[in-house]
Amino acid sequence: MIVGIKPVTEPAAAIARGLEGVVATETRLSHVDGQAGELTIAGFPLQALASRATFEEMLFLLWHDRLPNAPELSDLKAELAARRSLPAVTETLLTEAARQRLPGMDALRLGADTLSLADPAPGDPSESANLKRAKAIAAAIPTIVASYWRRLQGAAPVEPRPDLSHAGNYLYMLFGVEPHPEAARGLETYLNTVVDHGMNNSTFTARVIISSGTDIYSAVVGAIGALKGPLHGGAPGPALDMVFQLRQRARQSGRSLEQEAEAHVREVVAADGRIMGFGHRIYKVRDPRADVLGAAAERLFQRAMDDGLYADAQAVERVVLRVLEELKPGRNLRTNVEFYTALILHGLGLELPLFTPTFAVARVGGWTGHILEQMRDGRIFRPRSAYVGGVSRQWVNLEDRS
Amino acid sequence: MIVGIKPVTEPAAAIARGLEGVVATETRLSHVDGQAGELTIAGFPLQALASRATFEEMLFLLWHDRLPNAPELSDLKAELAARRSLPAVTETLLTEAARQRLPGMDALRLGADTLSLADPAPGDPSESANLKRAKAIAAAIPTIVASYWRRLQGAAPVEPRPDLSHAGNYLYMLFGVEPHPEAARGLETYLNTVVDHGMNNSTFTARVIISSGTDIYSAVVGAIGALKGPLHGGAPGPALDMVFQLRQRARQSGRSLEQEAEAHVREVVAADGRIMGFGHRIYKVRDPRADVLGAAAERLFQRAMDDGLYADAQAVERVVLRVLEELKPGRNLRTNVEFYTALILHGLGLELPLFTPTFAVARVGGWTGHILEQMRDGRIFRPRSAYVGGVSRQWVNLEDRS
Repeated sequence: MIVGIKPVTEPAAAIARGLEGVVATETRLSHVDGQAGELTIAGFPLQALASRATFEEMLFLLWHDRLPNAPELSDLKAELAARRSLPAVTETLLTEAARQRLPGMDALRLGADTLSLADPAPGDPSESANLKRAKAIAAAIPTIVASYWRRLQGAAPVEPRPDLSHAGNYLYMLFGVEPHPEAARGLETYLNTVVDHGMNNSTFTARVIISSGTDIYSAVVGAIGALKGPLHGGAPGPALDMVFQLRQRARQSGRSLEQEAEAHVREVVAADGRIMGFGHRIYKVRDPRADVLGAAAERLFQRAMDDGLYADAQAVERVVLRVLEELKPGRNLRTNVEFYTALILHGLGLELPLFTPTFAVARVGGWTGHILEQMRDGRIFRPRSAYVGGVSRQWVNLEDRS
Repeated sequence: MIVGIKPVTEPAAAIARGLEGVVATETRLSHVDGQAGELTIAGFPLQALASRATFEEMLFLLWHDRLPNAPELSDLKAELAARRSLPAVTETLLTEAARQRLPGMDALRLGADTLSLADPAPGDPSESANLKRAKAIAAAIPTIVASYWRRLQGAAPVEPRPDLSHAGNYLYMLFGVEPHPEAARGLETYLNTVVDHGMNNSTFTARVIISSGTDIYSAVVGAIGALKGPLHGGAPGPALDMVFQLRQRARQSGRSLEQEAEAHVREVVAADGRIMGFGHRIYKVRDPRADVLGAAAERLFQRAMDDGLYADAQAVERVVLRVLEELKPGRNLRTNVEFYTALILHGLGLELPLFTPTFAVARVGGWTGHILEQMRDGRIFRPRSAYVGGVSRQWVNLEDRS
């Protein structure tokens, strides 16, 4: 029986492309106010937290909607430190991935997936069991990233050290030496700054997956897969590349860095191009994350290293902002989070392929917070689609098809 | 600096809970018309395809928006058959998962994740490379499911046979014997029937993930994780459990199956319970999938087996429909897809833990079709959220927290 179908049989509804402007959920975790240039994390302006909180405090805040007291923080640190080592099967898989030169985010997705084989509360569906799982995942992700990075370099992984902080231990596992306290603090401020940011694509992915009633590993693995995508944003490489390129041009031309920067901006704007590291889709007046990361970068470079990069980056930034204001008056193009992220991560000695995995080391705090929150909601995400395909097609037997 | 924030700073917008009613995308792949009781797959009424098409033809249809001709189908069958074996690292991981008695869907998610280690087109971002990946994933998923099932039973995995059809080979890998042609046909009709179904949660997950520009493995792994969830639907176990329980009661009480069924329905309805296998959230008049699966079940049981289960299931169904119409007149509660799915999968010898993984064997056709379609769209899914958390919280130093 072939039944003719009507192309539109339900009330027409506008298509919400990319779900832009659609309010998909409520959350207590973060609020992005682009008009005011403000980012709230669980009730705190980002500026109140970023350079003060340890990353462990940020995790507690996202999981419990308040800051921990001293015994609670001490317990959480101990629990996280105890969960840093990887299951043997994870090590096997990462070794194979490194043999095949898999990109770091693919290896992270694979490695995080195997954490379900070391579940701290098998079969327990309670919220406290899921909180244990969140801790186990947040604790292990830095180890996966760092040990995979070392494998890619042909170096042996460095065993985690339980006496170091979450941020400090990550740097230790990457480089095999105990980090300068200011380096650990710089990383911590970066992690705090990007830990959560409203309904970005990977966070939304985590909420959509967990809304089916599935497990937290499935939701985190999905989020890692989404964060990998180049449209996700937060790919801070190109912003600093510009500074390096301008430095090199200045050395070759004998002109000043400022002169090279000015020429470059005018050239890019004339060609309708975009200056990486400036301007943001959402923040119209300023990106509050850029403020705190700018301050953190200054502190990191002043106290823990001084290779002139910070001064050069500042010089380039000043020129870019001045020339952009001249060429695009009123557009208010500000330095964005990518510019300072690149400066800090570079200052910490991280190479470019580590930038997005390190973003994941932070963002897993937001993902797990949103997953725990969504689990309490209990409503599955199931939108509609508009059908634009063929209608009333007729079956033709294989031998009669051209 | 502590900045006070306003709880609402953007125009109020209604929260689209679960995105219900929101049209999130266009698609050429399928259309669910709940009012008319019609399901369209790429322009065809489901009834025109389900019992006629091979599963390989369904995959081609979803990937190319038309049926293949004979050489194209032959090529696709060969490509799929050549991609059925698993990488050694996948085998290692499945062995470890079985040792830990991981549920089948977790093992499938893990196994599918490792397929990125055997990518057929490394580094190639073209659509033809992604089509190759879709084929590799669709080809390997039955092998992961079947070999993991055998591992869980303590049996050795059965190597895939390239001379068998996709459906026939799946049954062969599960049971180690070449299936009756009517068994392969019965499975094929089931796979065709559930291959795609609009914006269900796992398909939406796949589209949200791939919209970030990430890879197809990440999107499929996310979809598997979502399909695992008990709210996803398509968990057909309880529908047939009722028939088994009623059979047993009839044996014990000496009353007829029909009498037991009638008493059961009246009891459940009086307690405001739900009769599993009847009624559907979307389909108001009939579920077209129930029609084709009912016919497929009849054919399967008549031609390939006759253990009386089909007759008993029909007897129970008749009583349930009659009593539901009497007790809930006008509600039009029809037999749904779960009832016949359970009948067919049970008839094929599949045990309950295989039901959802077998659903995934089918649904990967829809997922990969939607992923390829979404890749052409290029627009990232990024909704908004409404902030309902605390405001203007003030930092308190650790030692001052109570």
